[in-house]
Amino acid sequence: MIVTVIGLGLIGGSFAKSLSELSADYTILGCDLSAENEEKAMALGLVSECLPMEQAISKAEIILLAIPVDALESMLSGILDRVRPDQLVIDFGSTKLNIAQSVISHPKRANYLAAHPMAGTENTGPEAALSGLYENKILILCDHELTNKDLLEQANSIFDLLSFQVIFMDSESHDKHIAYVSHLSHVSSFMLGLTVLDIEKDEENVFNMAGSGFMSTVRLAMSSPDMWTPIFLQNKKNVKNALSQYIERLQLFEKALDGDNFNDLHRMMTSANQIKKALGRKEQ
Amino acid sequence: MIVTVIGLGLIGGSFAKSLSELSADYTILGCDLSAENEEKAMALGLVSECLPMEQAISKAEIILLAIPVDALESMLSGILDRVRPDQLVIDFGSTKLNIAQSVISHPKRANYLAAHPMAGTENTGPEAALSGLYENKILILCDHELTNKDLLEQANSIFDLLSFQVIFMDSESHDKHIAYVSHLSHVSSFMLGLTVLDIEKDEENVFNMAGSGFMSTVRLAMSSPDMWTPIFLQNKKNVKNALSQYIERLQLFEKALDGDNFNDLHRMMTSANQIKKALGRKEQ
Repeated sequence: MIVTVIGLGLIGGSFAKSLSELSADYTILGCDLSAENEEKAMALGLVSECLPMEQAISKAEIILLAIPVDALESMLSGILDRVRPDQLVIDFGSTKLNIAQSVISHPKRANYLAAHPMAGTENTGPEAALSGLYENKILILCDHELTNKDLLEQANSIFDLLSFQVIFMDSESHDKHIAYVSHLSHVSSFMLGLTVLDIEKDEENVFNMAGSGFMSTVRLAMSSPDMWTPIFLQNKKNVKNALSQYIERLQLFEKALDGDNFNDLHRMMTSANQIKKALGRKEQ
Repeated sequence: MIVTVIGLGLIGGSFAKSLSELSADYTILGCDLSAENEEKAMALGLVSECLPMEQAISKAEIILLAIPVDALESMLSGILDRVRPDQLVIDFGSTKLNIAQSVISHPKRANYLAAHPMAGTENTGPEAALSGLYENKILILCDHELTNKDLLEQANSIFDLLSFQVIFMDSESHDKHIAYVSHLSHVSSFMLGLTVLDIEKDEENVFNMAGSGFMSTVRLAMSSPDMWTPIFLQNKKNVKNALSQYIERLQLFEKALDGDNFNDLHRMMTSANQIKKALGRKEQ
């Protein structure tokens, strides 16, 4: 089976690398706006060949789109226009509602599957591709009842092979909740990194002091602005809600600190500790 | 040599465990306010014996204090009152200035060494003790020129054995910078955890969606409120400054998002990306 990966960065590159390493049944073609990325992907063996988009799409049975969400929104409908009944287009975007709405009345909506892998690293580009990136990671499928059943089955074979844990959700719920469990984390980390850089920029040695806690909270600040700017804008309403709730709590904390209010500070942190239990549910 | 560890949680327990595993030259005595912690520490073999504080101090050549910073501030002077000229008291607290000031005119100031290990996990208690916790981690020594040279040498032998990377700083600079590279990370993570729990508490399945990015930013929200409330209060001025700078940037982000300002969002995130280079300096 031929699978075309459009967008050969961390997400698409890891998909290509994993799939080709796990099974000889799939031939992976690639396509990227950047000729440099295509060359790197070939050199790294992520894909067996790179082709112009039209050819890459035409040759494949499954087309994975791993491109920024604004590009997805503008391109998905045009790509669907071109596909045959036996072809499936999957997107791995981090927002879902706008993209879903861009093809909701498309005559070939059943040839599209909306997916969001909860996996990544702070690195970008083909050289960031990891073969084990998706192993035991969550894959959220949105509105999958709108996808043709046979095509969905083909996709599920691939998701099984990659050891994804698949969960289901509608696009609107996805975007609402993902604002809290992913997008807000990224805002908090980007702005943490920016704050420390702005204030400590002339302190050569301050980063020597940083321990694993700082590394952990600031890791996402190394993520790609090209990828994340469109995500935040596409999920603007939900991200704004999450962000204003976050700022509100930071201000409550600031107020408690200012008033030397040991009990309020302790109580807020004790409540926050419950995140361990909430995340523990996942393991069960 | 006999070393007494007062406070048998993650920090003190890891010190005891590491030291006893790395060398047979040290006998580790323990002491904790909680009899349960003392029993656990004995059962886990972190210490060879637990004794009442006065005896535990009197028997040791080196006394490590790994207790909350408010307890340090109130107890350090009284402990120094009791030590002999050949005894050294080291504290591992996360704030330094208030503690330093509490003993600045103490006649036995030279018997005290202020230290802050940049290491930890989100877990607490003797059962969280890890023998490798301090390996290749930063240890900040503050105002070490006020410590007796021979005693400092003894302490350095232990720090070398544990594979600490020792750096030096005055207490005031420590507290100022640590607010940015540690304390602010903890506030941001605690309040992130709290926000998500408050808003998503009735959504049983939302935590299934969480990926490694969320885990990374929210890990510190599992830290101990007993330990962190006094840290934030002791470093109030610096933490308040850091927090207000952080909130200001989150509000700028919110404003750019609200105005669909792609360029401002992208620019802020691109600046934040520089944290990778700043942290990279550390490796060089």
